[in-house]
Amino acid sequence: MFMTKPMEIEDRSMEIIAPHLEGLALSDDEKKICSRIIHASGDVSYAPIVKIHPEAIATIKAALNRGANIFTDVEMVRRGISIRTFTKFGGEIFCKVSDVDVREFAKREGITRSMAAMRIFGKRLNGEIVAIGNAPTALFEVLRLAREENIKPAAIIGVPVGFVGAAQSKAELIAQKEIPYITVEGTKGGSSIAVAAVNAILYMMDNSRGLNEK
Amino acid sequence: MFMTKPMEIEDRSMEIIAPHLEGLALSDDEKKICSRIIHASGDVSYAPIVKIHPEAIATIKAALNRGANIFTDVEMVRRGISIRTFTKFGGEIFCKVSDVDVREFAKREGITRSMAAMRIFGKRLNGEIVAIGNAPTALFEVLRLAREENIKPAAIIGVPVGFVGAAQSKAELIAQKEIPYITVEGTKGGSSIAVAAVNAILYMMDNSRGLNEK
Repeated sequence: MFMTKPMEIEDRSMEIIAPHLEGLALSDDEKKICSRIIHASGDVSYAPIVKIHPEAIATIKAALNRGANIFTDVEMVRRGISIRTFTKFGGEIFCKVSDVDVREFAKREGITRSMAAMRIFGKRLNGEIVAIGNAPTALFEVLRLAREENIKPAAIIGVPVGFVGAAQSKAELIAQKEIPYITVEGTKGGSSIAVAAVNAILYMMDNSRGLNEK
Repeated sequence: MFMTKPMEIEDRSMEIIAPHLEGLALSDDEKKICSRIIHASGDVSYAPIVKIHPEAIATIKAALNRGANIFTDVEMVRRGISIRTFTKFGGEIFCKVSDVDVREFAKREGITRSMAAMRIFGKRLNGEIVAIGNAPTALFEVLRLAREENIKPAAIIGVPVGFVGAAQSKAELIAQKEIPYITVEGTKGGSSIAVAAVNAILYMMDNSRGLNEK
């Protein structure tokens, strides 16, 4: 037999994950983010590589509470964020990676579509939340916008994945000091990880603990 | 500096991944699936745990070629499949996890929404492709439908994730002998992994190698 009740599954999963976070210097809220990332990946080796800026969670909560929007690099991240919870706060989720203008701009410039999308968002990112789950180039571009064009998102959830630029883009995210971030060191990451981090914070803020488990 | 050209990024990534597949007894097509899973997770430790039924790739290609539909457990899987490539073959992608009737059925029965969705799909799964990236309960249900109700999908891409039932559901998938599968042993998996497997096959079939990299 197997468990079929959503809340029992989630509770049991979190119980199994908890010992893997022992010994790490994490607040309760930081533990919730790490737990959900491990829950979403089935991979306890995320525990020591999740890196959360000390002001990130409070900043993201405050931004959501004032109705901040979320800008994502790919549609999977947009689609994975718990929309039932997110919409309670009044924001919208934007993703331009599939837009025709972005496709044409990317082709013309010889850059990825998600990088082109971030450049086209431009000033709209000021004060908002950026969530990048796929493309290192998108994260590099958001960091360049901050550095060169003074465009400052409230916070960046930046967990691009892979072997070409991902680790470097996340190291640059950690190295900059102005924008609070949630990230993962090294090559690992992905849309599911970005979604897990966003949803962990949404569920912290949503006392009507609902049917999170699908 | 960092790479910005989509095809260069993908080619370089695959070059870095290739040595990690050496020594594994994989066909060229199986290597493409493993590579894309590693590419999507940033995690080379997927190499030895990806399990592909010997007939899975040929069966999935044949099903796609006759316009088979894909049934997913969660919206992230639906959204991640390369729709530009998939639609060339004439099929549709279905996901019911957010439907009102599924939500009500799940609540009434005390089961997960994705499990309820698979039960409601029922006979519609016959001869189609199932792609499960999140919920062990959805995979258990598809296997039960096959065993008890003679409902036989053409193939199952089953990579549910986590610590409660995921490893067991995937072991059952490997143990059954009737339906070709692509899976991953153990706790790891997720929507990005399911999407990577589906897209790897779509890209094999699509000679107009396009801008896959986002």
